[in-house]
Amino acid sequence: MGAARFLRGLALRVDPRRLKVIVNTGDDEEFYGLHVSPDIDTVTYTLAGLANPDTGWGLSGESFNTLHALERFYGKGWFALGDRDLATHLYRTDRLRQGWPLSRITADIALRLKVRAQILPMSDDRVRTFVKIRGREPMPFQEYFVRNRARGQVEKIELRGAGRARPLPQALQAIRSSRAVILAPSNPFVSIGPILAMKGMRSALASIKDRVAAISPLVGGKPIKGPADKMMRGLGHEVSPAGWAKLYRDCVGTMVIDQVDRSYLEPIRTLGFKAVATDTIMTSPARAAELADVVLGALEV
Amino acid sequence: MGAARFLRGLALRVDPRRLKVIVNTGDDEEFYGLHVSPDIDTVTYTLAGLANPDTGWGLSGESFNTLHALERFYGKGWFALGDRDLATHLYRTDRLRQGWPLSRITADIALRLKVRAQILPMSDDRVRTFVKIRGREPMPFQEYFVRNRARGQVEKIELRGAGRARPLPQALQAIRSSRAVILAPSNPFVSIGPILAMKGMRSALASIKDRVAAISPLVGGKPIKGPADKMMRGLGHEVSPAGWAKLYRDCVGTMVIDQVDRSYLEPIRTLGFKAVATDTIMTSPARAAELADVVLGALEV
Repeated sequence: MGAARFLRGLALRVDPRRLKVIVNTGDDEEFYGLHVSPDIDTVTYTLAGLANPDTGWGLSGESFNTLHALERFYGKGWFALGDRDLATHLYRTDRLRQGWPLSRITADIALRLKVRAQILPMSDDRVRTFVKIRGREPMPFQEYFVRNRARGQVEKIELRGAGRARPLPQALQAIRSSRAVILAPSNPFVSIGPILAMKGMRSALASIKDRVAAISPLVGGKPIKGPADKMMRGLGHEVSPAGWAKLYRDCVGTMVIDQVDRSYLEPIRTLGFKAVATDTIMTSPARAAELADVVLGALEV
Repeated sequence: MGAARFLRGLALRVDPRRLKVIVNTGDDEEFYGLHVSPDIDTVTYTLAGLANPDTGWGLSGESFNTLHALERFYGKGWFALGDRDLATHLYRTDRLRQGWPLSRITADIALRLKVRAQILPMSDDRVRTFVKIRGREPMPFQEYFVRNRARGQVEKIELRGAGRARPLPQALQAIRSSRAVILAPSNPFVSIGPILAMKGMRSALASIKDRVAAISPLVGGKPIKGPADKMMRGLGHEVSPAGWAKLYRDCVGTMVIDQVDRSYLEPIRTLGFKAVATDTIMTSPARAAELADVVLGALEV
């Protein structure tokens, strides 16, 4: 998850207490009766310093004894949940059943894991991202991404419930009062897309556009990880930093692309953006922090 | 749990496919949003050969990684749930939420763990055993037994919901059609008591009284484990095999007491029971099987 890597670097440059992270919940899924919020957890575990750096999900040093025992009842699973990770899902599910909104639970979990940044789900309402692959019925994101390993030609992304979901008021407020907003190098359709689909989100960003930067998830026409290129192609977009930039014309002022893609600086500027090229490959927290420096610099923060 | 030890021996003598075990659910409790049925699980794990012989609860070779991680959210717990044991509770809770009755879930879990005996919860309805200790409000059984280590003077046992709970029809049917019914050497108030409190249960036993035996949980005035003696005393019963036998006058024909208590054979016979004395201390499955032989012999099965 590029967002997590970037956050790890950003937190080295910005006082975490001033950091507010708006997180996609369209990938949330129920497993074994538990509400799992993969993106929230990855962000939380990353900022808590507990994330597994090798996998991009879950906790470091995990065991999988419960998951193994669950196979007796559910058959072989396709979504790995570690024993310690399960505690998070148990707690979240328990609190949801008690009527707590997801945002309150998320803040509570972050606090207990000693995360100082604010982690804000995009909404307390349920939004579910479905991916439509050629020849298949639309399937929930995790099924597409994990179970089917993002195979197949993407024809459509559906954000079910996005139209009637209320955006988290604190998220909109955070944008309006922020000195800078950074769209992490994440998938524009299934990671950033659901957040921007929240009512008022795009216009909130548009109103402070000169303080908004986005980091390209593409390097040389490919994402570091994940199906962003396949989705762009499938959905009829040009698979390039320029094609990517066009997705954000209304709500982003500054585009940060990888140095190998510097030939796209001019086309992106022609679209009306400020644009900078730099090394966006975050092989270490220090490199991620350097990327954060460039982005903050471009925003003149 | 004396019942589990006895079952382990009984299953060596009786074809498990003919064995039906009616189990107390008054001790069921919710932990971390999961429905835990301690007695059902102990019986199931025991008959599956998976039980931890050292503790009397849980699975052998367990780890406790999830439980440890849960402390961050709930504080230090007082009820130990192992990682593999959790899979059982997750599955049960998930199925309950889907509307399955506990009896169907119990049979399903037993099947998946390759248990051939039938395990029958006393009821699909919720019954909760509360223990009233001097100077305290009544507390749920697990809180009394595990959290408070059965401390304090017992003044009252409340079986909340027992009056309106429907006994499991298969349990009543099993009794009526059985060649022999054995009340395991268990606590008469909180283990056997809730089962007998199910409507029609005592009269079903009474109607086949000569085929019903009970094994005393007392040896020399003390239970091998647990607070049966304290409860008898607190509730005004004579703490002896005779005091114990009186609890079952209406519904048991044959009393099996420990050899050290053989002086009580005559008093118990005077109460109208058949009575035998034997070694009831089950230090091994083989010894438990010998006890089963004596009980089955006394019932002339």
